[in-house]
Amino acid sequence: MKKVAVLGAGSWGTALSIVLAENGHDVRLWSHRAEQAEEINKTKRNDRYLDVTLPDQITAFYNLKEAVQDVEAIVIVVPAKAIREVARSLTGIIPEHATIIHATKGIEPITLMRVSEMIAEELPEYPADNIVVLSGPSHAEEVALRHPTTVTVAAKNADKNKHAQNLFNSDTFRVYTSQDVLGIELGGALKNIIALGAGISDGLGFGDNAKAALITRGLAEITRLGTSLGANPFSFLGLSGVGDLIVTCTSVHSRNWRAGNLLGKGHELEAVLEEMGMVVEGVRTVKAAQQIAEKQDVEMPITTGIYQILFEGKKPEEVVNQLMNRDKREELAELEILLKEHDS
Amino acid sequence: MKKVAVLGAGSWGTALSIVLAENGHDVRLWSHRAEQAEEINKTKRNDRYLDVTLPDQITAFYNLKEAVQDVEAIVIVVPAKAIREVARSLTGIIPEHATIIHATKGIEPITLMRVSEMIAEELPEYPADNIVVLSGPSHAEEVALRHPTTVTVAAKNADKNKHAQNLFNSDTFRVYTSQDVLGIELGGALKNIIALGAGISDGLGFGDNAKAALITRGLAEITRLGTSLGANPFSFLGLSGVGDLIVTCTSVHSRNWRAGNLLGKGHELEAVLEEMGMVVEGVRTVKAAQQIAEKQDVEMPITTGIYQILFEGKKPEEVVNQLMNRDKREELAELEILLKEHDS
Repeated sequence: MKKVAVLGAGSWGTALSIVLAENGHDVRLWSHRAEQAEEINKTKRNDRYLDVTLPDQITAFYNLKEAVQDVEAIVIVVPAKAIREVARSLTGIIPEHATIIHATKGIEPITLMRVSEMIAEELPEYPADNIVVLSGPSHAEEVALRHPTTVTVAAKNADKNKHAQNLFNSDTFRVYTSQDVLGIELGGALKNIIALGAGISDGLGFGDNAKAALITRGLAEITRLGTSLGANPFSFLGLSGVGDLIVTCTSVHSRNWRAGNLLGKGHELEAVLEEMGMVVEGVRTVKAAQQIAEKQDVEMPITTGIYQILFEGKKPEEVVNQLMNRDKREELAELEILLKEHDS
Repeated sequence: MKKVAVLGAGSWGTALSIVLAENGHDVRLWSHRAEQAEEINKTKRNDRYLDVTLPDQITAFYNLKEAVQDVEAIVIVVPAKAIREVARSLTGIIPEHATIIHATKGIEPITLMRVSEMIAEELPEYPADNIVVLSGPSHAEEVALRHPTTVTVAAKNADKNKHAQNLFNSDTFRVYTSQDVLGIELGGALKNIIALGAGISDGLGFGDNAKAALITRGLAEITRLGTSLGANPFSFLGLSGVGDLIVTCTSVHSRNWRAGNLLGKGHELEAVLEEMGMVVEGVRTVKAAQQIAEKQDVEMPITTGIYQILFEGKKPEEVVNQLMNRDKREELAELEILLKEHDS
């Protein structure tokens, strides 16, 4: 039995705690709200997020220092905007040799940093190569029900990566390893752009052909962007790329899909965000990706089109026309050129 | 205005005829049933297959020689099992310089030949490099409604490929080109295996995570198989790969998905095929792919698992366990090795 801390008691943090507990570990689930921690310990449930009874090996904590004491791994599962604060508060209390794993998706606006980069910046004493990212197609509700799920973990340090794989891997939660931290993090974040696009397409009343085209060509352009930054293009063919993209674009539960759907039906961005009443990560990511694409000089016609709908008042119909009437293309040419650059 | 023959008046042949007619071409739609050809010419409808009125530029033919007279392209859109017969009957009547394009998916059992190979074998006087394949995520019904659709055409002969692209490309039907005939044909055929698997997963009551895992890892293994035969791995990232896979695996209209769904619910193969009352292409393809995988010594755990369910009486639950409990893997290793072999 190994002690593992999970920071963040939302649905995904709770689901990952269940996986760890069923693997026999002593799980310390930290919440930033004292009453939530108490409630979990009293009822063995976290009803606001997941409709299941929690295994006994999960104990909730409100005190961060207690939660991480003597643990061999710290799993960070808070929203992207809380990453810096939580990482910073770990200063001086990380047990020696503990592995830091994060399962948060997003790119920080303005700095354009990935989650592992934010953590590394806030925790300069912790070796950046030891940070592991866990990502893949995984609705928390299904993980909690022990339905078969697969994810990828990636870290520069192979031992830390193996450690994360061993902690989580089970016969209902299969964990693959990868060395491509950049590609795995970008896949998870950028896929939200395409989910917005899929929602817009459905909102316009188009069918499966249009959505499949959008997903496929969207995948090609996020692969181009990722590769231009140094990611392995094959990562986008994997669980954190194609896999997560499929789950997000074909599930009506996806927040990004729902926001896109309203936009496709002709609603204004402000009204959509108000109606959603919560952060739509994809909207922030479109802005970040558009900036990176310009800097890297990578053509991203779908991202640019969605950017124009979101921030320049362009009508979705106009953007569809613009996408369908581009110069005739060879399908794989751009990808192959980038791959050659990546390999050389 | 250019004369183009479309051989096969099912839903896909009719939809492609509409695309060509709207591009201003004189379309000759051939049916092997005289009464269907008459009906189409009389009513300007093909009600059994598509609920739309056909443009005036489409004329139906029953006489094949008349249909192909003076055309500059012949588009073959018949079921895989009729390919050889239709191709053979073109002997001696193909106009000089005409381009042969096919839009049929499948691999022939026993010979393990692709559609373009079957056509080439039946028409030795026609240059094999001039045969174009058209493939991609495209429900015929949506194409007939002019919803945005994208496909890929591939041929060894670049002029013929460009010719096909120019005939079909429009502002609702975007055509990309590729030189990888092998990859484009294999993607379209092998995706039916994964669609069967997606149906089985849904039939077992699993959720989106399991299905996304199956699609992603299934894509990885058909990419491995295709690459081992000489295909470009990136073709499987394109419209004929990922794109078609998404449409087929997430649509409950897919015949392969429906067959898989019944298998997942515990029905026997024979009962399923009887209930479907029609050919389930994926069942033939699983057999062919399993043979090719053994010959090429490529590991295809999902295909093998589905083969065991179909032909060896293994329970779907057992196969799921077997897939989730394989040795722990690095996600991209196998793909990258094959790519290096492909490039060298």
